[in-house]
Amino acid sequence: MTSMVINLAGIEKEFSHNDRGLAYGDGVFETILVHEEKPVWWCEHWQRLIRGAEILNIRTPDEAIVSNACNRLLMNANHGVLKIILTRGSGGRGYAVPDDQDPRIIISLHPAPAPILDAVNLHWCETQLACQPALARIKHLNRLEQVLARNEWQDANIFDGLMCDTEGNVVCATSANVFASIDGRWLTPKIDRAGIAGIARAWVLRQWPQAQEAHLSRLQIEQADAIFICNAVRGILAVKRLGDREYPVHGDIPDLQNRLAKVQPAFAMGEYSGS
Amino acid sequence: MTSMVINLAGIEKEFSHNDRGLAYGDGVFETILVHEEKPVWWCEHWQRLIRGAEILNIRTPDEAIVSNACNRLLMNANHGVLKIILTRGSGGRGYAVPDDQDPRIIISLHPAPAPILDAVNLHWCETQLACQPALARIKHLNRLEQVLARNEWQDANIFDGLMCDTEGNVVCATSANVFASIDGRWLTPKIDRAGIAGIARAWVLRQWPQAQEAHLSRLQIEQADAIFICNAVRGILAVKRLGDREYPVHGDIPDLQNRLAKVQPAFAMGEYSGS
Repeated sequence: MTSMVINLAGIEKEFSHNDRGLAYGDGVFETILVHEEKPVWWCEHWQRLIRGAEILNIRTPDEAIVSNACNRLLMNANHGVLKIILTRGSGGRGYAVPDDQDPRIIISLHPAPAPILDAVNLHWCETQLACQPALARIKHLNRLEQVLARNEWQDANIFDGLMCDTEGNVVCATSANVFASIDGRWLTPKIDRAGIAGIARAWVLRQWPQAQEAHLSRLQIEQADAIFICNAVRGILAVKRLGDREYPVHGDIPDLQNRLAKVQPAFAMGEYSGS
Repeated sequence: MTSMVINLAGIEKEFSHNDRGLAYGDGVFETILVHEEKPVWWCEHWQRLIRGAEILNIRTPDEAIVSNACNRLLMNANHGVLKIILTRGSGGRGYAVPDDQDPRIIISLHPAPAPILDAVNLHWCETQLACQPALARIKHLNRLEQVLARNEWQDANIFDGLMCDTEGNVVCATSANVFASIDGRWLTPKIDRAGIAGIARAWVLRQWPQAQEAHLSRLQIEQADAIFICNAVRGILAVKRLGDREYPVHGDIPDLQNRLAKVQPAFAMGEYSGS
């Protein structure tokens, strides 16, 4: 992993043990697929980062400054995953935000994950997502629920786990959004009380105006005709098994994968291997 | 602020941008009052730290190793606040816990806050605590709700704010627990779905076997005869105003403060100033 820390002026800084990102998870992050030295879906990631910072009232960086720093890190990176963390910066003890917020931006480049060429298996997570509308949709640094959920299984044949909120609605996988084909329509859970507004999810909703957001129960997902999950690093992945239920791969799924690979060649199957 | 980072073997280490404490809030912390070079309520803080680590399945450190490191930092510190953060350590991208967990312990010493000699004013927070039984009671690093709540007011005359959970139960202040005198009995909110099991709160419950944990509504707190808040850095603070409601200082409160000052002289009024 290579990494750097900059402030809002783009000047390289040291990380401090007093950083509020570490102390309280007081910040937001993005995880971005890299293809031929370029971040994929940069604008969408950037907009979500800024929206999250605004909701947390963190001073927002200038896009050109962060983009330039990322480009320096991405030189000669054909494949990889770029992670950007924006924290509120140092901040003494106590939850009160210092008057002189000096946010920190931590940028790191990681190997791309091995490609997935087949439909995946999912687990039903026991860990539930608490309902917190004030923090839903944004990609903030408070991710203990996902850590607990992801560590419910060790089986390498299980790719991810689906999570419900404490009111019983299905929300998302630990690191992806989910779509289900129900009565001939594609539906994806509303994420107004928990979960992250995924970049790939938004792309699917733009591609398919007939797809809808809905409150979905576990039973509805179990009885769906087909499901897939999606995120900005993996693209679209058909699901072949969820708990005890097996699903066929719906014909819409390879169609959608092909459409995505056409507009974002980074997602062409097998293309984004770390090799 | 002075600080150090050690691993489970007590060896000094560098912090990594890849630390899961920063990435996900994947860790726990303690904030400990220091008096004459000694951490106050060390055993209680240590036990909560370990309980939190066990719930998160983080490898637990040896008490002597951490205690020795803290003692090095506390040499010549008459007053102050010691903060211990235990994270799961570095961990690549992704929520899965690495097989070779190498937790990090970040220890820092901060100035003691100025003493509070009078009863305090509280604010009713609009930010609610999500109900998440899996993470209630422990002092984990996911504290965005407290950050949002604490930043609802700027008025320096307001010391803290009371928070309700999303089901309408009063839980705690942003950085303290609360007790209310209702129909002649002292009650404190249950913290089985949100909030932290405070060290000072546990001390009060041990002192007063007649005090009870209960589900308390906002109306019950507003109609209480008296309230106080408590934490391990401030001790016990009477409340004179909460929102529009003014409270008398119940005679039990100075009694309890005196009892605390007798067993823990660090809490003698005015003693724990940063001067």
